[in-house]
Amino acid sequence: MRIAFIGLGVMGRSMALNLIKGGFEVRGFARSKDKAVKLEALGIPMTLSLSQAVSEAECVITMVGGPRDVEDLYFRHEGILNSAAKGALLIDMTSSSPDLARRIHAEAQQRGLEALDAPVSGGDKGARAGTLSIFAGGDQKTFDRALPVFKAMGRDIILEGPSGAGQSTKLANQIMVAGSLAGMCEGFAFAKSQGLDLQKVFDSVRRGAAASASLELYGERIIAGDDQPGGALSYLVKDLRCAAGALEGSGLDLNVAAAVLKNYATMQDEGDGALGTQALTWFYEKHRKQN
Amino acid sequence: MRIAFIGLGVMGRSMALNLIKGGFEVRGFARSKDKAVKLEALGIPMTLSLSQAVSEAECVITMVGGPRDVEDLYFRHEGILNSAAKGALLIDMTSSSPDLARRIHAEAQQRGLEALDAPVSGGDKGARAGTLSIFAGGDQKTFDRALPVFKAMGRDIILEGPSGAGQSTKLANQIMVAGSLAGMCEGFAFAKSQGLDLQKVFDSVRRGAAASASLELYGERIIAGDDQPGGALSYLVKDLRCAAGALEGSGLDLNVAAAVLKNYATMQDEGDGALGTQALTWFYEKHRKQN
Repeated sequence: MRIAFIGLGVMGRSMALNLIKGGFEVRGFARSKDKAVKLEALGIPMTLSLSQAVSEAECVITMVGGPRDVEDLYFRHEGILNSAAKGALLIDMTSSSPDLARRIHAEAQQRGLEALDAPVSGGDKGARAGTLSIFAGGDQKTFDRALPVFKAMGRDIILEGPSGAGQSTKLANQIMVAGSLAGMCEGFAFAKSQGLDLQKVFDSVRRGAAASASLELYGERIIAGDDQPGGALSYLVKDLRCAAGALEGSGLDLNVAAAVLKNYATMQDEGDGALGTQALTWFYEKHRKQN
Repeated sequence: MRIAFIGLGVMGRSMALNLIKGGFEVRGFARSKDKAVKLEALGIPMTLSLSQAVSEAECVITMVGGPRDVEDLYFRHEGILNSAAKGALLIDMTSSSPDLARRIHAEAQQRGLEALDAPVSGGDKGARAGTLSIFAGGDQKTFDRALPVFKAMGRDIILEGPSGAGQSTKLANQIMVAGSLAGMCEGFAFAKSQGLDLQKVFDSVRRGAAASASLELYGERIIAGDDQPGGALSYLVKDLRCAAGALEGSGLDLNVAAAVLKNYATMQDEGDGALGTQALTWFYEKHRKQN
């Protein structure tokens, strides 16, 4: 199956390489020649024309920054919806908004195309290892068609429901992650303020009720004072804003996720959006109130 | 070693039974004769006089409701500090306030007694299995003296630092737990609001970045609509209030823990304090805002 892969950042390039390893004929797209040359050196055949890459593919995968990039890629004049070959399978793996996923799905149907939303969890590690969790939304027959493609990149692969359900599941996942990250960071910030030895705290709590993937991923980094990503906090800001958007008009006030978003958005506004999510640990001390 | 054990609730009775199994000579205390009879039937020798139980013991363990009960037990006229035999080892395993632990420690020292704070994590399951995590605060030599006692009840046993450090570590643990619980509950509340299948969401997220002890302990119960404890939410309210108290004057605003506390305190005020912590999942829908 010929696959056009659009969005070859840290995650995308590992996913594309796993597709190639899985026997798929992948063609990448990059806007700049410099980038294309670098990605070809990694082993990903590239083209500089989006419409050409898309029109020649049976399957188009997008893995870009966020909903605005997705909307532009799919809906602009020379974009994916206008360029795709009849019957093509369009898979957006970007973490984005459920509404946008449904709009793409409806538009694709009208043109005789098939579309899935299929955001992932597992980070750069999971992308490299081919062990991503994939949250798919769309029709069963489209999902079945896409399954061999997903299997080259992921491990836990679930059709969550109709179009948009993949994005909604990813947002539910991110709300859970936000809580566990913030709990961990505030717990360490509290421990520090009480003069505790953070290593002892970590050793004490990691196997009990506070155990979490967040602690395993970031506990040692926090103890070492390391605020580098891992996952850049700006992605979590984007996802939590998507979740807030999806809740609009529902009357549901998820105030804990809102508090986490407020903190991370403040960090982003202060120019720290590229820091790792665990950097929240030091936010509270920086914003300490004077008495 | 003769041990007086005060506070034979769900946790305390399992801990006392493990001490007996470990070869310690335990004497329990209960205020009412009915309770004493029931606990004796479980295999715990009982007395109806607190001061007698305490004065005859080399080690006194307290495992009661919260700081107010602890303060009363230790400081009242016929309480532990006035009744304990010279050189006795006093161990408060209640989750309580670091300040109170330091007051007990100072008072004990003046009277030739030794005191440790040693709250635990691991719930009724860990208490029964003898696999509690024990967070101790106090002097090294007192800790060494208490270690055989702790080993009969727990697995991860750490001297966190001087008096109060055990309580502070427990509070750090509870802040982490609060975040991961609330993240999980809000994630499921979000998923429900978006029409997702909660079982699919659970299967999708449990091995990824959202993985947590909270999810493993409560995910299935939430899917089943089960709001019964596990851990009653009123205990978390108490602990988060202790944490807020310990932060007073520090200028540190842990706003995520504060948001979690606000929700659980509201549930408690509404008469739901005995529900399990996972019942937060249904709080948001109950408090949905009308548009």
